[in-house]
Amino acid sequence: MTKRRRMRSAEKTLGTSPGTLTYVGDDIQHATRIKRIDYNTDTYHIDDNSKLSQCQPPDEQAPVIHWVDVDGIHEPQVVSGIGQRYHLHPLLLEDVVNTDQKPKIDFYDEMTDTSPSPMPGSGPVIFVTLKMLHHHRAQPDVDMEHVSLVLGRNFLVSFQEERTKDIFEPVIDRIKASAGKTRRSGPDYLLYALLDLIVDHYLVLTEYIGERMDKLEEVIVKERAGQQTLTELYNLKRELAHMRRVVNPTRDIVGALLREDSELIKPTTIPYLRDLADHINQTLETLDAYREGVSGLMDVYYSIVNNRMNTVMKTLTIVSAIFIPLTFIVGVYGMNFEFMPELKSPHGYFYVWGLMILIAIGEVIYFKRRGWM
Amino acid sequence: MTKRRRMRSAEKTLGTSPGTLTYVGDDIQHATRIKRIDYNTDTYHIDDNSKLSQCQPPDEQAPVIHWVDVDGIHEPQVVSGIGQRYHLHPLLLEDVVNTDQKPKIDFYDEMTDTSPSPMPGSGPVIFVTLKMLHHHRAQPDVDMEHVSLVLGRNFLVSFQEERTKDIFEPVIDRIKASAGKTRRSGPDYLLYALLDLIVDHYLVLTEYIGERMDKLEEVIVKERAGQQTLTELYNLKRELAHMRRVVNPTRDIVGALLREDSELIKPTTIPYLRDLADHINQTLETLDAYREGVSGLMDVYYSIVNNRMNTVMKTLTIVSAIFIPLTFIVGVYGMNFEFMPELKSPHGYFYVWGLMILIAIGEVIYFKRRGWM
Amino acid sequence: MTKRRRMRSAEKTLGTSPGTLTYVGDDIQHATRIKRIDYNTDTYHIDDNSKLSQCQPPDEQAPVIHWVDVDGIHEPQVVSGIGQRYHLHPLLLEDVVNTDQKPKIDFYDEMTDTSPSPMPGSGPVIFVTLKMLHHHRAQPDVDMEHVSLVLGRNFLVSFQEERTKDIFEPVIDRIKASAGKTRRSGPDYLLYALLDLIVDHYLVLTEYIGERMDKLEEVIVKERAGQQTLTELYNLKRELAHMRRVVNPTRDIVGALLREDSELIKPTTIPYLRDLADHINQTLETLDAYREGVSGLMDVYYSIVNNRMNTVMKTLTIVSAIFIPLTFIVGVYGMNFEFMPELKSPHGYFYVWGLMILIAIGEVIYFKRRGWM
Amino acid sequence: MTKRRRMRSAEKTLGTSPGTLTYVGDDIQHATRIKRIDYNTDTYHIDDNSKLSQCQPPDEQAPVIHWVDVDGIHEPQVVSGIGQRYHLHPLLLEDVVNTDQKPKIDFYDEMTDTSPSPMPGSGPVIFVTLKMLHHHRAQPDVDMEHVSLVLGRNFLVSFQEERTKDIFEPVIDRIKASAGKTRRSGPDYLLYALLDLIVDHYLVLTEYIGERMDKLEEVIVKERAGQQTLTELYNLKRELAHMRRVVNPTRDIVGALLREDSELIKPTTIPYLRDLADHINQTLETLDAYREGVSGLMDVYYSIVNNRMNTVMKTLTIVSAIFIPLTFIVGVYGMNFEFMPELKSPHGYFYVWGLMILIAIGEVIYFKRRGWM
Amino acid sequence: MTKRRRMRSAEKTLGTSPGTLTYVGDDIQHATRIKRIDYNTDTYHIDDNSKLSQCQPPDEQAPVIHWVDVDGIHEPQVVSGIGQRYHLHPLLLEDVVNTDQKPKIDFYDEMTDTSPSPMPGSGPVIFVTLKMLHHHRAQPDVDMEHVSLVLGRNFLVSFQEERTKDIFEPVIDRIKASAGKTRRSGPDYLLYALLDLIVDHYLVLTEYIGERMDKLEEVIVKERAGQQTLTELYNLKRELAHMRRVVNPTRDIVGALLREDSELIKPTTIPYLRDLADHINQTLETLDAYREGVSGLMDVYYSIVNNRMNTVMKTLTIVSAIFIPLTFIVGVYGMNFEFMPELKSPHGYFYVWGLMILIAIGEVIYFKRRGWM
Repeated sequence: MTKRRRMRSAEKTLGTSPGTLTYVGDDIQHATRIKRIDYNTDTYHIDDNSKLSQCQPPDEQAPVIHWVDVDGIHEPQVVSGIGQRYHLHPLLLEDVVNTDQKPKIDFYDEMTDTSPSPMPGSGPVIFVTLKMLHHHRAQPDVDMEHVSLVLGRNFLVSFQEERTKDIFEPVIDRIKASAGKTRRSGPDYLLYALLDLIVDHYLVLTEYIGERMDKLEEVIVKERAGQQTLTELYNLKRELAHMRRVVNPTRDIVGALLREDSELIKPTTIPYLRDLADHINQTLETLDAYREGVSGLMDVYYSIVNNRMNTVMKTLTIVSAIFIPLTFIVGVYGMNFEFMPELKSPHGYFYVWGLMILIAIGEVIYFKRRGWM
Repeated sequence: MTKRRRMRSAEKTLGTSPGTLTYVGDDIQHATRIKRIDYNTDTYHIDDNSKLSQCQPPDEQAPVIHWVDVDGIHEPQVVSGIGQRYHLHPLLLEDVVNTDQKPKIDFYDEMTDTSPSPMPGSGPVIFVTLKMLHHHRAQPDVDMEHVSLVLGRNFLVSFQEERTKDIFEPVIDRIKASAGKTRRSGPDYLLYALLDLIVDHYLVLTEYIGERMDKLEEVIVKERAGQQTLTELYNLKRELAHMRRVVNPTRDIVGALLREDSELIKPTTIPYLRDLADHINQTLETLDAYREGVSGLMDVYYSIVNNRMNTVMKTLTIVSAIFIPLTFIVGVYGMNFEFMPELKSPHGYFYVWGLMILIAIGEVIYFKRRGWM
Repeated sequence: MTKRRRMRSAEKTLGTSPGTLTYVGDDIQHATRIKRIDYNTDTYHIDDNSKLSQCQPPDEQAPVIHWVDVDGIHEPQVVSGIGQRYHLHPLLLEDVVNTDQKPKIDFYDEMTDTSPSPMPGSGPVIFVTLKMLHHHRAQPDVDMEHVSLVLGRNFLVSFQEERTKDIFEPVIDRIKASAGKTRRSGPDYLLYALLDLIVDHYLVLTEYIGERMDKLEEVIVKERAGQQTLTELYNLKRELAHMRRVVNPTRDIVGALLREDSELIKPTTIPYLRDLADHINQTLETLDAYREGVSGLMDVYYSIVNNRMNTVMKTLTIVSAIFIPLTFIVGVYGMNFEFMPELKSPHGYFYVWGLMILIAIGEVIYFKRRGWM
Repeated sequence: MTKRRRMRSAEKTLGTSPGTLTYVGDDIQHATRIKRIDYNTDTYHIDDNSKLSQCQPPDEQAPVIHWVDVDGIHEPQVVSGIGQRYHLHPLLLEDVVNTDQKPKIDFYDEMTDTSPSPMPGSGPVIFVTLKMLHHHRAQPDVDMEHVSLVLGRNFLVSFQEERTKDIFEPVIDRIKASAGKTRRSGPDYLLYALLDLIVDHYLVLTEYIGERMDKLEEVIVKERAGQQTLTELYNLKRELAHMRRVVNPTRDIVGALLREDSELIKPTTIPYLRDLADHINQTLETLDAYREGVSGLMDVYYSIVNNRMNTVMKTLTIVSAIFIPLTFIVGVYGMNFEFMPELKSPHGYFYVWGLMILIAIGEVIYFKRRGWM
Repeated sequence: MTKRRRMRSAEKTLGTSPGTLTYVGDDIQHATRIKRIDYNTDTYHIDDNSKLSQCQPPDEQAPVIHWVDVDGIHEPQVVSGIGQRYHLHPLLLEDVVNTDQKPKIDFYDEMTDTSPSPMPGSGPVIFVTLKMLHHHRAQPDVDMEHVSLVLGRNFLVSFQEERTKDIFEPVIDRIKASAGKTRRSGPDYLLYALLDLIVDHYLVLTEYIGERMDKLEEVIVKERAGQQTLTELYNLKRELAHMRRVVNPTRDIVGALLREDSELIKPTTIPYLRDLADHINQTLETLDAYREGVSGLMDVYYSIVNNRMNTVMKTLTIVSAIFIPLTFIVGVYGMNFEFMPELKSPHGYFYVWGLMILIAIGEVIYFKRRGWM
């Protein structure tokens, strides 16, 4: 599905001017939903279905953290409206709607070329785009969602593809629940919290892959695997490679946040980001271990198949090697020559049986010695 | 074709003095066509078939951007004429006509050794040479075109191999269409626009390869693949490797433009170049994913072939193992010994049948138990 | 076991606030045991079963080294109690109880956000978490224990999973035994001594793997190996990969200790840490050599199996090629045509035998010439 | 040849003092020939058969470039004579005569320890040693020649193994031909010209390998390849690896010339060296592409062989599976039991034929369905 | 042998205090022999069997170079005695006696913690430990010797495992022979000379491996190779890997000597060390080329084996495919039906022969066409 889509997209946008907003994802019917959350240690206000016109970056001195969560990126006018109100670069918006965009981070300085500087929101922003990976136990498929986060001095704008459920709900719940760490900290901690949520989902998905691998291992070790099992192993391998391509740039994103020394990231958030980097590394390591594991299982499978094949060939060889010569012998005494002295002998028949039994025993001994039986 | 050509070329140029212009591409009949485009925010002038003598870098103070698009690099006198008029280094011109030159970027400082400095056009230039890849849906082949771009203070010279169609037309159309970003910006943005066009074509070609891979996957998974499919997979693999060799140095080119901090690249163009670098990375990543995909498909194909082979061998073994012993038994009672007591027995024939059926059933049970049937 | 556990853990902690202490290891019944050791060159005091309330970082001027060894990390309240008393960061404690945490080192600066600075223990700390690998000769399994070490200005806190035996006993014994190097040096040397102990165990385990590899090699070279041997080789390969994943980050830990130039590591301890880095490198090198060795053994095994298979096929071919034509010949003279002149010939039978012997000898010569016999 | 030679050499020189000149190449009968060329823009003088005593580095102020081309390195006294006259380090001379020396570059500073400094020629020198690869269309073998170049302030000394033809003739011809770039430039450009000549030969050889690969590809794709073709592919692979080992360090040499910022390399020569670096990279890239190509061809070959093998096995299986059961049936009615009711039946014979034809048809249908026929 | 030994060693030293001298090599009966050599340009003095008490680092102003060559490292008291007299760090001595120590270099600064500084020998030292590899033509085995070198301001201490022959004799001979470079230079040149000797032995061993590879190649190309040859190839591969593990860290040692800019290495020795680095690189490159060569030979061997197997299978198939149908036909006319019209026909027998010959010819043509015969 993804592949087919991207194909059309590249040909569609060929030759258009850069900065043109073209949504290339699946067709969506619903309207974009905008959630507006303002909070600080003392209080919070959540507008579940805000109008575009209500969204505006707060004054820099305002003691409030402003979060706009845009649920749907298929309506260019909404995205570009948000862009105008929060003074976002056209190329940034292009990446927001381009669901094929791979995860990356961009540090935008003051928007000097779009508007006079003293307006709220025209300060530097950090732009992060990455992939949310859901897995629903019921379905075998993984749902990949294109997520973009824009961190300003005292606001954060998040974009997600339209789905029935808002992926950031646990964080909103934490804001509602108590005046904890999230409420006490700035928008950089909010950025961290959202990234952490996404990375946690990577880990859950990794574990699900691990479970399937364990099941396949059991099937293979008990020598009950067939072509079916092998195909599943190849699928697992592909999924692991795909996850790696999603998780790996996420590590670079967090690395850049730690390294770039932006004024938007406060020192107290650094340990949390380091912890996040740790989790990502752990996920990557687990993915690598699983990839090795899958390769190992394939090797074991092939070695078992090969072994069985060898047994088949040995059986064929033993049966043939024993009975073909005997068949020749009985063929000899089935000839109709008029003069065949053995045929007249009263015990010829038994002698021949004796000879054949001797040959058969000899061959069995020979095969046993060579370890074929 | 490419290979054969290069061969002649290397032996031809062996021992000649460096800086000699020798065109090594396909033979071309048409004359070189030169397009001259002068534009700024307010106006534009396009001369579709300019004479060499009309081409001249504009004065540094002139409020105009000067673009010369040379369509054909097979006439050394034309290329060297352009070189003289725009004060280009002989080695630069050698790379322009050498269609075997791999993509690269060179930063030339002031041309102090060829002419007195105050003349227009003798300032620093950035030289970029790379490959255009076209794919025409109708034909299976990919058309590779050697493209060179020279960026000066207020001019840009582009060279392309002679083809029926100018590859840069979409950009010319944009200049004609409106006083947009392209018209408002300098020659560095024009350089970006041309590079972006070329990179977009890489993406289209990558997607075409992806489509073919999908088709092959379907054939393989449905177990209808043969040697033919495998050969196509090998071709795909080779094409992917070839594309990688074209796209990879292009990444280095854009990287150098971003890194080198040349006075010719204005800060406002930097975000666009970063965006371009992003697109190239995405193409490279897709190529890598496809290469892994092709390898995976090969493995699946081989595993299917192997599996089928095993089934063939099992069938042979089962048929042989059942009937060879039975044939031996009937051979025994086909012997012509005068004294064979069983032959006289009125039910001997039926006993033998019974024995043979027992053996056959025994073997079938044995094979079923071992999982061969 | 490990895998299953981690699975539950990731889903369990999904969406919880960072810094929440959740023990994810095996269920443990026993209570946590705390050992408190205070020592200097002159004297030492060991409290084998200290109460949490007795633990407290010593005054910075106190001429004593304070070591708290926490045996059990399954009781969150104990770990968080230690954390409060020694002013440890919540994320640090999270890593202490998370038995899935991979080995790493963290340098924590002054705990300015948790408590006023002049209190003892609130200075900078180095946090190291790594894995202890035990191998008990009797059992085939390897016991992996999650160990964390916190080094402060004049104290060291160690955490280990609850086991029947304290893994740090040899170091405690050395403290008891005499006023040697360990007693004369600071807590940084104690950290080194504990790391050294853990690394020594890696080496012992590596050697155990080497022993098993030697045994497998003997079996394979003597051509007595079967699918069983191969499975063991795969297990060895997996164990080596697992050990590499444990030992490799340990190298990074020691590397960081050497590189980071922390005030907590005294110059006199540096040569010892370098020596430790050396041991780790040696272990890694041995692991790599063993991995190559295992791959080599697999190749030898496969080549032997392949060779045997070829012998089987040759035997089948020779037997078939000799007897099938002969069986055809005797079949010819078993036909019941009324007019078959050879049958009347008095020596026909012997002629046929002669012919058949000639054919058999011819084939034997042919096979010998081709090197098949 | 090379291998055997090196063997003797290593054992021969074991334990000798470093700096001892020991020629280890093939035995040579001819005397060393020394060419002495002095040139500048206005004039040139060539002495084709100079005496050692005539060679002397020119005075630093002399407006002349001095080139000594030593044709033969098998006479230690000649090489050491040149070394004394041009003040070359003993280790440099050791590398000149050691034909096993791999390509490298060395920057020697003032020879302060061998002679008082104001003498001509005792300034810094750049020493380059590399391999010339010739290929003669008539012979299949490649001729490898050990070449050394010493660049001083106003002189260049070149050493080559004795061959019937001087490999540097094209450059001498250019000097003779006209007062072009070579004559106008300094000894550093001469160094470049000689390196360029050698690198051009690499390219020619690479193309020759490409031609052979094309031929093998044709043979393989047309499925006419045998063990012979495979052996040739292995040889090609080995040659490619060998060429890589020759060309790769040459890249490092040119890289060092560009990087090291020696006073001996003038800025105007830098673009030419960059161009040279480009050519080497192109050669390396082509070598890599060819290596991939050879691997691909091997894979295709093996897949074709495997495919053919499968066809053979299927044929065997089909023939056996059809005729072995039928042979059993006719065997049944060849038994000599006195009481076999079917034998008396007047249409028994035809019924049996019918049964056998039915079985055969059934099997053919079965095999067709499984895709084996 | 080595493996078994190391095993015992790791378990033996588990938990002992660092710096404890434990010899882990083979059991040795002989006493340690100490050679003491004092030399300068004018004179030299060699004491072949010095007492430990006679060894003492010379005064820093003494115009003499002092070399102590300790032949045997199995007596801890001797090694620790030397250590005390030359003020060597305990960890250094531990590496001297630990024959499992991999090659490395350590730079020790002033021994401030062991003794007051003005005593001779307490200055900085460079410690190098590496492996000597001997090969005796008569025996197939390679003798690996653990060698350690300690370079001080005006002394050098060398340790080697006890063997019948001193490996450094050629250097001692050169000291005896004449007042050459070795006598004229300092202890750093002596260090170089000893390293050079060891590296030369690596080269000799590499060549010996090359010779064996050449022999195996001949056997394989002439298609006379069996399982035996393959096993030898695997052994070669293992030896190459082992040598690489010995030579590679030696390169790092020389690299560190060149890079570290120690006061103990004089500038005049640098060119010699660079030359040495060159030799090591050459050895490594040769090892890599040989490894590729061995892999290539294995591939050729397998392809030949595979090819032969295919021939065997084709032979089986052809014989079976021709004779099995014919045997069926003669079986048909061996049936005993009372009514079989063909049997009465006077020429039936000959018709059947004709039919069978036709079938056989048809099959031969068919197989020839498919290229199987």
